This record gives sequence, C-alpha cells and structure tokens, in this order.
Amino acid sequence: MQNENMMNFNSKNILITGGLGFIGSNLAIRLAGLDAHVTLVDSLIPEYGGNLWNIEPVKDKVVINISDVRDEHSMKYLVQGIDYVFNLAGQTSHLDSMTDPYIDLEINAYSQLFILEACRKHNPGVKIVFAGTRQIYGIPEYLPVDEKHPFKPVDINGVNKMAGEWYHIVYNNIYGIRSAVLRLTNTYGPRMRVKDARQTFLGIWIRNLVERKPLPVFGDGKQLRDFNYVDDVVDALLRCALFEESNGKVYNLGADDPVTLKDTAELLISLNGGGSYKTVPFPPDRKVIDIGDYYGDHSKITSELGWLPKTGLSEGLSETLEYYRRFSLHYWGDGDAA
Amino acid sequence: MQNENMMNFNSKNILITGGLGFIGSNLAIRLAGLDAHVTLVDSLIPEYGGNLWNIEPVKDKVVINISDVRDEHSMKYLVQGIDYVFNLAGQTSHLDSMTDPYIDLEINAYSQLFILEACRKHNPGVKIVFAGTRQIYGIPEYLPVDEKHPFKPVDINGVNKMAGEWYHIVYNNIYGIRSAVLRLTNTYGPRMRVKDARQTFLGIWIRNLVERKPLPVFGDGKQLRDFNYVDDVVDALLRCALFEESNGKVYNLGADDPVTLKDTAELLISLNGGGSYKTVPFPPDRKVIDIGDYYGDHSKITSELGWLPKTGLSEGLSETLEYYRRFSLHYWGDGDAA
Repeated sequence: MQNENMMNFNSKNILITGGLGFIGSNLAIRLAGLDAHVTLVDSLIPEYGGNLWNIEPVKDKVVINISDVRDEHSMKYLVQGIDYVFNLAGQTSHLDSMTDPYIDLEINAYSQLFILEACRKHNPGVKIVFAGTRQIYGIPEYLPVDEKHPFKPVDINGVNKMAGEWYHIVYNNIYGIRSAVLRLTNTYGPRMRVKDARQTFLGIWIRNLVERKPLPVFGDGKQLRDFNYVDDVVDALLRCALFEESNGKVYNLGADDPVTLKDTAELLISLNGGGSYKTVPFPPDRKVIDIGDYYGDHSKITSELGWLPKTGLSEGLSETLEYYRRFSLHYWGDGDAA
Repeated sequence: MQNENMMNFNSKNILITGGLGFIGSNLAIRLAGLDAHVTLVDSLIPEYGGNLWNIEPVKDKVVINISDVRDEHSMKYLVQGIDYVFNLAGQTSHLDSMTDPYIDLEINAYSQLFILEACRKHNPGVKIVFAGTRQIYGIPEYLPVDEKHPFKPVDINGVNKMAGEWYHIVYNNIYGIRSAVLRLTNTYGPRMRVKDARQTFLGIWIRNLVERKPLPVFGDGKQLRDFNYVDDVVDALLRCALFEESNGKVYNLGADDPVTLKDTAELLISLNGGGSYKTVPFPPDRKVIDIGDYYGDHSKITSELGWLPKTGLSEGLSETLEYYRRFSLHYWGDGDAA
C-alpha cells in the first residue's frame, strides 16, 4: 500500500483479536512499525495458533492482553477507545469443529456477537475487519470462486464462520458499526502454526521438511489450491480497515497461480534443497470434509481496494522455510510456547 | 398426501420440538389422528408461540414434555427411540433477535447442535425435518425466490436460522443423520400466535379484526407476500419425513398467488363482513430489517415430493377467523395460556 495511506495508522488505537496467532502477529509487527498503538488479545489455548515468540520483534511496542473472546466482559472493556478492531480470533480446525462443535460455535459465532454488541454499546464509531474463510463455499460449483458463489459449508466450522461474518454485515447495515469481511484462502508464511496438522497441511509439511521427514500428501495430490503469503493478507486487512468503500462488504482473497498439492510439495522440497514426500490415503475423517479443487477470484478486492497478491509462491515458501529453520525451537522444540 | 403413505406414521414414535406452538400443534393433531405416538417438547416461554389450548383436541392422545431445547440433557433423553423428529422450536421474532441476539443464537443455533449431537450419539437412525425460513435470503434479488437464491440475511434471526439449517445438512452429509429442511414463508391458520405483533403481522390483524379495531398496514401496503395455510405446511413436513428423496435437501415453500399486504387486509375485512385498516408509517426498527417484496418458488418440492399448496387464501383466512372468533379467550383473553 502507498505510504501516505499507511500514515493513517500512526497513533491509532488498534485491537487485534487472535493477536498472538499467525496472521495477527504479522499484522501487529506491521502496525507497530507504523507507530500504531496496538493491543493484542489472545487466549493462548495450546492447540490454537497463539505463540508469544510470534511477536518477539515488537514485544516492547505492543500491549499483550491474555483473554478469550468468549469472555464477554473483557471484550466489553477492551473495545473501548479503539479505532480499528482486526477480528482474527477463531477456532480454525475443521476436524476439531466436528469433534467439538460447541467450542467452535462459541468462538466463531457466539463470541462474535459479544464483540459486536460491545462495539455497539461502547464504541459505535469503530471500524472492524473480520477474517472469514473460503470454507463457507464448500465444494466449488465453478472456479475461480467469486463472492457470489453459493454457501454450502461442508463442516461445522464453515457453518459457524458463515454466521460470524454475517453478524458483522448485519451490524454494519442495521447499526452502522462499520465492518468489512475478508474471506481468506490458504494463508502461509512465518509464524504459522507448524507443530502438527491441526490447522493446515502446509504447517506440518514445513516442520517435516526441517526435521528431514517425508511430507504426507493425501490422495493423489492433484487437488488445486491457492496460497496467499501472509504479508499480502496483512496488506488486504489494512486496506479493508482504511477504505470506507469496504464497509458492509465481503471480499475473497486468492492467488493467480493455483497449484496442486503434489506440485506444492515438490516445490517446497526443491526450495529446501532436499527432502521427500509420500502419498497416503485420505484419512476418512478428512475426506468427508474435503472440498476438492479450490481457487478464489480476487478481482473484487483488486478493483475496489487495489489489492494484489505480490509475493510469489517460491519466494514466500523460501522465506517461510528460512524462518522455521532459524526458530524451530520456538514452534515445536523445548521452547515451544504452545 | 395419499392415505397409503400416511399409514406409515401409524405407531411411529414422533418428537415435535416447539410442539405446543402454531405449526407444531397442527402437526401433532394430524399425527395423533394417524395413530402415531407423539411427544411434544415445548418451553411455554410466554412471548413465544406455545399454548396448551392448541392441542386441546388431542390432549389425551399425546405426551407433553415441558422443556427447553437449550436443555441439552433433556434433549439427549427425549430423542431416544424416536423415528421422526420435527424440529420446529425456534425464536421467530425478527425484532427480538436484534434486541437480544444471544437468546436467538442459543435457541436457533446452539440448541440445534444439542439436538443433532443427541441424535448422532443416541439415535443415529432417526429422520429429522427442520423448519427453516425464507428470512435467510434477505431482500430478494429476483422473484419468485428459489433455493439457489443467495443468502443475505438482514437480521440476526436470519443469520442464526441459516446456521441452524446448515448444521442439519452437515450432519446429514457427514454422519448420515437423515435431515431435510423446509424454508417456510408466511404460514397462517388456526393456533398461530395472535396476541401481539411479535411474530407476524397477520396475527395481530386477526386479533384486531375480532376485536373490531383497525388493522395497521405498514408503509404503502404494496409489499408482496405469499401465504401458506398451516394444513399445507403440515403436509410438506410429513412429505419431508416420509420420502428418502428429501435427505440432505432444502426446499422452499411458497404460494402461487402472491398478494400485497393492502389486498390481504381488504380480503380479511371482506371475509369478516366488516372492519377497517389504516396505513401507518413503517416503525424504524422494522423498516431496517424489512425485505420488501417476497414470494417463493416451490417447484422443487412440487417436483421431488409432490407437494402443492391446496388451500386458497380466502378459504384459509375464513377458517382462521372462524377459529379465533370461537376461541379468542384462549389466545388473548383471561384464559390465555401465554
């Protein structure tokens, strides 16, 4: 984004829910560099993405508030005086949403109402940017998937995230609580959770590669995916915050170079200068909620907010590998905060 | 429906959530007449639709269980041994969903997971029919509205009902808990809540007419609506239950003769042999969640399950008026169970 726009964050009060997680921490580092006053809310639930090491570069420049978005009262307090809420806290595991649908509902739907009601009552002038997901589209009826694609979620996580984003749209339209929704696709980069396969296959692949273990590729590995590097996603979040045009709107992210899982594994191995993958049968609990090929159409956010994905997959994966080679200790070693 | 199909309900165990409410009680009367074993679950929350008088004709033939769908443990017990669950309990007031979004979420979303989890763990062979709503479509992009119309709910009730129906579809697809969803439009008939304007304008119109007061018509009264008589809706629910074709499917109801609110008021007055209406400005809290013209396309349920709306508006409204003239005492008088 242009520097003159970025200056708008100078001295602004920012609240990031899920602020110690993957995307939240990258956003926090960016905003701290722009001299924003950043408060991070995170529950540090061990199985989720929060990790204190994530904000090591800015730990003296941000305020850390450990609490859970399910805690209505702390939310009520924390939203006060805030200019921009980046609402990124979520239960992101599709599998976990099936084994414990209630927790998924509480975090991805119920808590969103807490945050919106807190803003309505205590800070109606705030702008909120909510991290939605392509999961609500389910198995694509056509590709690339645009924002008009029908909602056909295939798991409980998709249903609850669908509710969560629509609460934001309703509060924007009825109460004028300015809100924008980004429907993220596969985001990757430094600070993602790589400890296990709970959130994304790419995480465990990177860990395995660094640990010199083969990468498991489910099925025939021919499923297409699109990947956004986290810096590009941070740029999209900032644009949604700054531009009034985004109020009450929903935008898909996406990449222009969809790639198969097998090709992604091969690219990773080549960037790593070694390694191997093995195809393994789709675990049944994953197969039933798999969405097949997916890639998103980002032309709406490109034309309305000027966003473009700038980091190619090779460049982004190299940066990511480099990060985890250097800091593995903090993500799955003895120093692992999770 | 054909009598030979109806015989399939003989001696079957049926659970109706919201069973003392408008649609639930009409369904209970029908099923009791078919010698099904019917259990009605209702919380009898005064502001909602439950009313013991509603099942007066079959009170000795059904089992009444007063409990709330938010009570996970009673749901766990009650679904056991049931062949068909008609899942009709809901918070149906759009206005109330904005003033207390949490209660709406708990009843229309959270509790649906209780019921589905209870079935998954204790009665996976059950068939569930869920009462959804046209509210999830929001302001129509085209008319008549078919099932492919985008979801753009305009209030919190619409968001939560959207989640509630998709939980059912996900449990059907992932766990094989057979479920079908009916998206209802304006349903009317004997046993609807007419005490006030909380659920539907038609209710308060009927009360006003019987009480010789003018009917309030919001705005210019030109908004189009489609109305289904409750007996036809009961028929649709029974078809969804019986036919395996409906598993995992969603069906719109609708009527073939959409009518403006003003014409509906005039028809009611003429059927009543007297009365008056007055146009009044749209109350602001209703205007922001109004959906404009709406009528639904029911061709999918017609072609797949053979359903057709059989009761014309004049005939249905006459029956309804007749009922409330006779039993007004039980709906807004001293004997009012609500």
